[in-house]
Amino acid sequence: MPEQFVIGVDLGGTKILTALANREGHVLAEQKIPTEAAKGQQHVVAQIVQSVEQVRKKAGVKPEQVPALALGAPGPLDSCKGIIHFAPNLAWHDLPIRQVLERRLSIPVLLDNDANLAALGEHVYGAGRGEDNMVYITVSTGIGGGLIFGGRLYRGFADVAGEIGHMTVFPDGPLCGCGNRGCLEALASGTAIARDARELAACGRGAQILAAAGGDAAGITAVTVAAAAAAGDNTAESIIARAARYLGIGIANIINLLNPSLVVLGGGVMDIGEPVWQNLRTEVQARTLEEAGKSARLAAAELGGRAGVMGAIALAQRCAFGVMDNQTWK
Amino acid sequence: MPEQFVIGVDLGGTKILTALANREGHVLAEQKIPTEAAKGQQHVVAQIVQSVEQVRKKAGVKPEQVPALALGAPGPLDSCKGIIHFAPNLAWHDLPIRQVLERRLSIPVLLDNDANLAALGEHVYGAGRGEDNMVYITVSTGIGGGLIFGGRLYRGFADVAGEIGHMTVFPDGPLCGCGNRGCLEALASGTAIARDARELAACGRGAQILAAAGGDAAGITAVTVAAAAAAGDNTAESIIARAARYLGIGIANIINLLNPSLVVLGGGVMDIGEPVWQNLRTEVQARTLEEAGKSARLAAAELGGRAGVMGAIALAQRCAFGVMDNQTWK
Repeated sequence: MPEQFVIGVDLGGTKILTALANREGHVLAEQKIPTEAAKGQQHVVAQIVQSVEQVRKKAGVKPEQVPALALGAPGPLDSCKGIIHFAPNLAWHDLPIRQVLERRLSIPVLLDNDANLAALGEHVYGAGRGEDNMVYITVSTGIGGGLIFGGRLYRGFADVAGEIGHMTVFPDGPLCGCGNRGCLEALASGTAIARDARELAACGRGAQILAAAGGDAAGITAVTVAAAAAAGDNTAESIIARAARYLGIGIANIINLLNPSLVVLGGGVMDIGEPVWQNLRTEVQARTLEEAGKSARLAAAELGGRAGVMGAIALAQRCAFGVMDNQTWK
Repeated sequence: MPEQFVIGVDLGGTKILTALANREGHVLAEQKIPTEAAKGQQHVVAQIVQSVEQVRKKAGVKPEQVPALALGAPGPLDSCKGIIHFAPNLAWHDLPIRQVLERRLSIPVLLDNDANLAALGEHVYGAGRGEDNMVYITVSTGIGGGLIFGGRLYRGFADVAGEIGHMTVFPDGPLCGCGNRGCLEALASGTAIARDARELAACGRGAQILAAAGGDAAGITAVTVAAAAAAGDNTAESIIARAARYLGIGIANIINLLNPSLVVLGGGVMDIGEPVWQNLRTEVQARTLEEAGKSARLAAAELGGRAGVMGAIALAQRCAFGVMDNQTWK
């Protein structure tokens, strides 16, 4: 039998990352292109097809040598049926992407949520190697995550588990995009940090944040707040500390509920560094029960923007070459 | 081969419930005795031994016909090694209960957390039959729970998963027994309801609650608050509504995070009835994401005080006669 390979695709609102790996997960070809969402659904599908063909040809691999391709996509989807129900940034509705891609590529296609695949990527190839009970959290413009239980991805009943960002941690807190109040995402995401800073700027506070944003309050982002904090601005520091403390509350809740051995934290807000990690650790320590707190290490994600595509490769490997069956619970 | 049976024991601070069942889980003999905790550890162990011997003899079964006995116990324990680390109501420390019981009974012994076994009991024999992704919550003097993922009990890394009661839902809320502030248990347990009512009574409010407690504020319990609410007392109604809303927040958080198909709710506070269920449902509906909210049915526990012993029977069955391997996730 000729050598076999797998392909992973991470479809995002801004970029499509495609990689081809051998049986062992060693990446042989990779391509990153901007998602041309404005050109419509058919165009983006064609971009995916072209990207897959290109990495395949670059690696000198035939379609029949690829027993599985896994695609990570945003938004509510049906991993079983291979349908993307809704992808907000792409304006897609109920697209049977598996069927479409299989017809065009002649390769079996798996579909999963992008946050799930990022969790699997960190579990198999990143900070979570060897950790069978881990939680992955990405803190960026939004807050999302994925759950690994017994070495496997836990998807829940309807494929929507892992919505860490929509945990209420302050019942009458700020309004969230989901319509609820006081979600973790509304208190600790990059978007929340920027909103807090803009509100303070409108009250005449946070002059250094405003300066870091070039004097335009509309230009304030989590990055400009972080820059002002790094320059010693107290207002910026307190905005970041507050967000990090809420993040710590959310993480402590997860640790008490799920008793993981590891929580992997990624995304732009974590890249702010010590001001986030320190405040977060303090809150986690204060709010976890003794045994659960001792069990859970916190670690920075290792794969950055490649977590999703590496998770897609891991999922395709598991499908094509068998699942590692290492469960310890009954 | 002669017919085989299993035995389940639910060891609580106030009672020991022991049952013997056949291979299919049909209970043939059962015994409930008060836990004489004040007489010390050795005495309680002797009570367990005697209780097991009695149900066994009552059913006419020999020790060699019992391939597994499962014991549910409170407090931090090591299910793998069979050691109870700490049982507060029994004043036990690091008792190797499995070894002790196996020597005395000549039956293989399994140990697990009482809330875990109650969850498994409701899953196999109660409200959770056929639901592979379910969460069990008991709302009583404390708030505890257990998690069933893929049809199996999820224990976490160090056997302490399921601490639903110590989820922070109001960061600067009332002090909890664990030392943290704003835990669900400090806001929505029977203890929290009674504390709120006593505080109001101390301010001269809640006359009907005080009357229901025989005029003594120290005698106020969740039951007296529920009685006053049922009699139309506004103060009592609002105390219960507030607790139920926090309970709804905690449940919504769990639904968003874990996407179960079912949340089973048991314990004395749930028995208060509609005032609790109605406020809780409203909050769950308001705070769950669409897909996760649609997935998750809320149901009353069916087994009451027998959930733990039936879970012990289910665990012993799985150990002795094989695990139902019905996982759907990879």
